[in-house]
Amino acid sequence: MSIEIERKFLIVNQAWRSHIKEDQHITQGYIKTEDATVRIRCYHDDKTGLITVKGKREGISRLEFEYPIPYTDAQEMQEKLCQSRLVEKTRHLIEYHGMLWELDEFHGDNEGLFIAEIELSAVDQPFDLPDWVGEDVSFDSKYRNSRLCVFPYKDWE
Amino acid sequence: MSIEIERKFLIVNQAWRSHIKEDQHITQGYIKTEDATVRIRCYHDDKTGLITVKGKREGISRLEFEYPIPYTDAQEMQEKLCQSRLVEKTRHLIEYHGMLWELDEFHGDNEGLFIAEIELSAVDQPFDLPDWVGEDVSFDSKYRNSRLCVFPYKDWE
Repeated sequence: MSIEIERKFLIVNQAWRSHIKEDQHITQGYIKTEDATVRIRCYHDDKTGLITVKGKREGISRLEFEYPIPYTDAQEMQEKLCQSRLVEKTRHLIEYHGMLWELDEFHGDNEGLFIAEIELSAVDQPFDLPDWVGEDVSFDSKYRNSRLCVFPYKDWE
Repeated sequence: MSIEIERKFLIVNQAWRSHIKEDQHITQGYIKTEDATVRIRCYHDDKTGLITVKGKREGISRLEFEYPIPYTDAQEMQEKLCQSRLVEKTRHLIEYHGMLWELDEFHGDNEGLFIAEIELSAVDQPFDLPDWVGEDVSFDSKYRNSRLCVFPYKDWE
């Protein structure tokens, strides 16, 4: 078990592209739940899978339980259990002032949306904001991946 | 991934008690889902945990994905994410004519209920019925563990 604490931001320009350390091509699906989120993720580059159970959000933190699983299991669960609740994205890993940023470039029905995330070890941990980061959307539920798969960016006003 | 194929029976007497190979003390909780069942199980004797994702039932078979997890994670998920959707039981492992039977003796709100289960490798695999086995309840949803935690035996007519 761990506690996930994260902040999310929109971006204002493409300057982050010159700082990419690594790209990960990811699909993730959701099994519909009421009290928790069960996420099935495929990392298509290194053919690995991940099952993650997340508790309800409290501010910017929530319980998180995460386990590696076989890639073929993850693919099959996405296909057979997640129905259309799937998000596809390229995750760009970026280091900025000693901290790791994950910049998600969404595809499919969320093409055109970019979200920069940073994971913190405490709610009040200080960190530097890169100049390519814009609005803080940490508390805006429509930017959650589990919402993007049912109400995608292309359908926003 | 595997496919779980199982038959369930009520019991008619206690003759099975003399054939027990092993007892397992189990609690299992459920994370509420629509298209799939996510079960978190604690094996209290050997302090192990299990996360299981099961697809929708088709007859007596369904998709099943099962992974061992730390016991403390399983305990915390049961406590914090499964709310009151918990089943407690002693699972008696019994060998009968070369096949393994799992005889669940329920506790708590399901005290008094016993269910004998056998897992098959094919829907039409033949097996011998022990004489302590009674009604076939394989298709009766109220005997599912995921139902017993919300509509327990003590509340049945």
